[in-house]
Amino acid sequence: MDVVDVIRAKRDGRRLSDEQIRFFISGYTDGSIPDYQAAALLMAVVWRGMESDELTAWTTEMIASGTRLDLSSVTAPTVDKHSTGGVGDKVSLPLAPIVAACGAADPMLSGRGLGHTGGTLDKLESIPGFNVNLGADEMIRIVRDVGCVICSAGSDLAPADRKLYALRDVTGTVESIPLIASSIMSKKIAEGTDALVLDVKVGSGAFLPDLDSARRLAETMVRIGTAHDVKTSALLTDMNTPLGRTAGNALEVVESVEMLEGKASSDLEDVTFALAAEMLDLAGVESDARAAVESGAALEKWREMVRAQGGDPDASLPEAPERRAVRSSGSGFVGRLDARGVGIAAWRLGAGRAKKEDPVSASAGIVCLKKPGDAVEDGEPILELHADDPARFEPALAALSGAIDISDSEPEPRPIVIERIRA
Amino acid sequence: MDVVDVIRAKRDGRRLSDEQIRFFISGYTDGSIPDYQAAALLMAVVWRGMESDELTAWTTEMIASGTRLDLSSVTAPTVDKHSTGGVGDKVSLPLAPIVAACGAADPMLSGRGLGHTGGTLDKLESIPGFNVNLGADEMIRIVRDVGCVICSAGSDLAPADRKLYALRDVTGTVESIPLIASSIMSKKIAEGTDALVLDVKVGSGAFLPDLDSARRLAETMVRIGTAHDVKTSALLTDMNTPLGRTAGNALEVVESVEMLEGKASSDLEDVTFALAAEMLDLAGVESDARAAVESGAALEKWREMVRAQGGDPDASLPEAPERRAVRSSGSGFVGRLDARGVGIAAWRLGAGRAKKEDPVSASAGIVCLKKPGDAVEDGEPILELHADDPARFEPALAALSGAIDISDSEPEPRPIVIERIRA
Repeated sequence: MDVVDVIRAKRDGRRLSDEQIRFFISGYTDGSIPDYQAAALLMAVVWRGMESDELTAWTTEMIASGTRLDLSSVTAPTVDKHSTGGVGDKVSLPLAPIVAACGAADPMLSGRGLGHTGGTLDKLESIPGFNVNLGADEMIRIVRDVGCVICSAGSDLAPADRKLYALRDVTGTVESIPLIASSIMSKKIAEGTDALVLDVKVGSGAFLPDLDSARRLAETMVRIGTAHDVKTSALLTDMNTPLGRTAGNALEVVESVEMLEGKASSDLEDVTFALAAEMLDLAGVESDARAAVESGAALEKWREMVRAQGGDPDASLPEAPERRAVRSSGSGFVGRLDARGVGIAAWRLGAGRAKKEDPVSASAGIVCLKKPGDAVEDGEPILELHADDPARFEPALAALSGAIDISDSEPEPRPIVIERIRA
Repeated sequence: MDVVDVIRAKRDGRRLSDEQIRFFISGYTDGSIPDYQAAALLMAVVWRGMESDELTAWTTEMIASGTRLDLSSVTAPTVDKHSTGGVGDKVSLPLAPIVAACGAADPMLSGRGLGHTGGTLDKLESIPGFNVNLGADEMIRIVRDVGCVICSAGSDLAPADRKLYALRDVTGTVESIPLIASSIMSKKIAEGTDALVLDVKVGSGAFLPDLDSARRLAETMVRIGTAHDVKTSALLTDMNTPLGRTAGNALEVVESVEMLEGKASSDLEDVTFALAAEMLDLAGVESDARAAVESGAALEKWREMVRAQGGDPDASLPEAPERRAVRSSGSGFVGRLDARGVGIAAWRLGAGRAKKEDPVSASAGIVCLKKPGDAVEDGEPILELHADDPARFEPALAALSGAIDISDSEPEPRPIVIERIRA
């Protein structure tokens, strides 16, 4: 088989055969197919897309490029959540302990932040001692013993995705629904979970701003999961406004613990409990997520998980020495607080990274003192910026230019959970 | 400037700015932009195409990647011809001496064959001693002294094209009108000629089988040439049937000399004289190409050129030891003699190469004893296959399966020159 024929077939809009897909994915993973041929094929996929069963075969081969975790020793039904990424999206942190407290098990493999959206692993690493790099055996042991774990994916989990993702990042081939869907789903299916709920973000702070694209991505991922015998559903949730009250690493850990203590903002609660209900439903577990928080069981699961991963749940978290308020330019109501602007500002404050190798600051970030719908007086603080170095404020403030609207009338509340998509 | 932004711009269908084009072409030529990013951009160009002035800028940068030959010391008006390649297309060999005999000068830089179409340099190298690798000074000296030269392009002539062409070949990005047009025109414009006639082949043996694509390619190249102050026109000519009576290296040299002796088949004469008339017209030379052949002046120019390039015009050429006839399966008229089938057969007999590094046989090839319109008896030979090794016949015959139609009635003659395209 000649890889140029594979590239030409996709270029000309033809479905790749299962044999062609296997040849390409295995050849690219083992290095026998060079980056330049993969780059040409990826751009042809961006152009031509993939048929549904073609994409299933593509994802199957990505999974087969590594080993699929064996969770058969976990007796509880396993269920996981994946978010396409947003600003202030710390949902994974309270959610995994909540579903574990309800009797399901969540074997969550997570990632780091890149660009203006934060990464779950970066947030957890602000907890002193917390170890996100676990071997497969240790990870499975914690899932079995505690009921949840949040750690990084090992290098033998869908290695084809690791290579393809790095190549897509430098060849302008990130923005493709089949490529995004297969990248996410290959890792989540390889993780071995029985069920999966996708949180597909829609809006200015999301990867896909428009509802149509987000819906297509959600439908595509649900189809791939279902075809691989993983019970899969998706919620489309609003990401025009940062989720909750914080964007940053330690800041979001603190807010997550507060949520488990019953002190969350309503949008964070709405998304977290909607996802929890969906996960428990798919897992076949009849249990009330809100009750698990109210009883303190979810908080206790969090503390167990932190300890099991080497962290100290009672340790104080890093706090930024430098603060700067962003004040209201008038009196009235906060009409809009743009997620993208806040995300980029938090990133520039040090919470995120521009390149994979960059370090992140544990303490940098933004506290949203007001959210859309809140009344404000002229000059009252809306945001509080946190940084290790005051030189960070200037570029962060530039990103916030135009990100806040103050209006005379109270804005219409927007539903945060927009739509549910099931197989 | 970030190359990913350049790739994204083309992917999203935007016109690249002149700065982006310069950044990409110079960066790719000097190696600072890697193959995988160039491959992604090339596929995006195949997808999105290029606007007319964008393609002009792209070609300008490809020329600027090397040095443009300075032919100012040549007093005669310079004019060249380029063919998109066909089967039995030996026109360059008689044509350059013909226009030189008429008073124009032809500084022809030519290429080698790849795939089923032959290469002018391969044909000339079947002449003992003939040297196609000349330095720029020597090449210009021969143009000045003889009036014509046919040699390979030096490595400093549009080096961007050399790299891009090699990459396109292995990434399924050959078939793109802007990429084909800029590749051809960057070399021809860098050659320094005042005027250029393009022979764009149409039909089964051509690179572009359909008339519409061939016309678009011709129009695109004429626009690029004109924008670079090279008087440019194009003829679309038929390539459904091999041109003349031979396909091979030494075989085509012999046929070319016969043409200069006034003994050509009518299709070869028609194409050659149409191109000569077009070239002389663009060069502003009033002279009769047919008269230059009849007087023997063109043949004398050929002999001068061969001697100037180290060859012996009187040397006998290699002849293949093995012959095999392909006979008519019935009585009637040859209705069709498929150029592609004959081209692939000649290639398999040893006249062409599959990879750039492969050697070619000087003597292998095919003699067309009959052409469409000729009457044949059942069992009469139509083709004569020539090879160095009889093992070559079997695969060559397979390529000829279905390539010859015998019909009861005489087929309608088809015009060989289909259309002329001028600025």
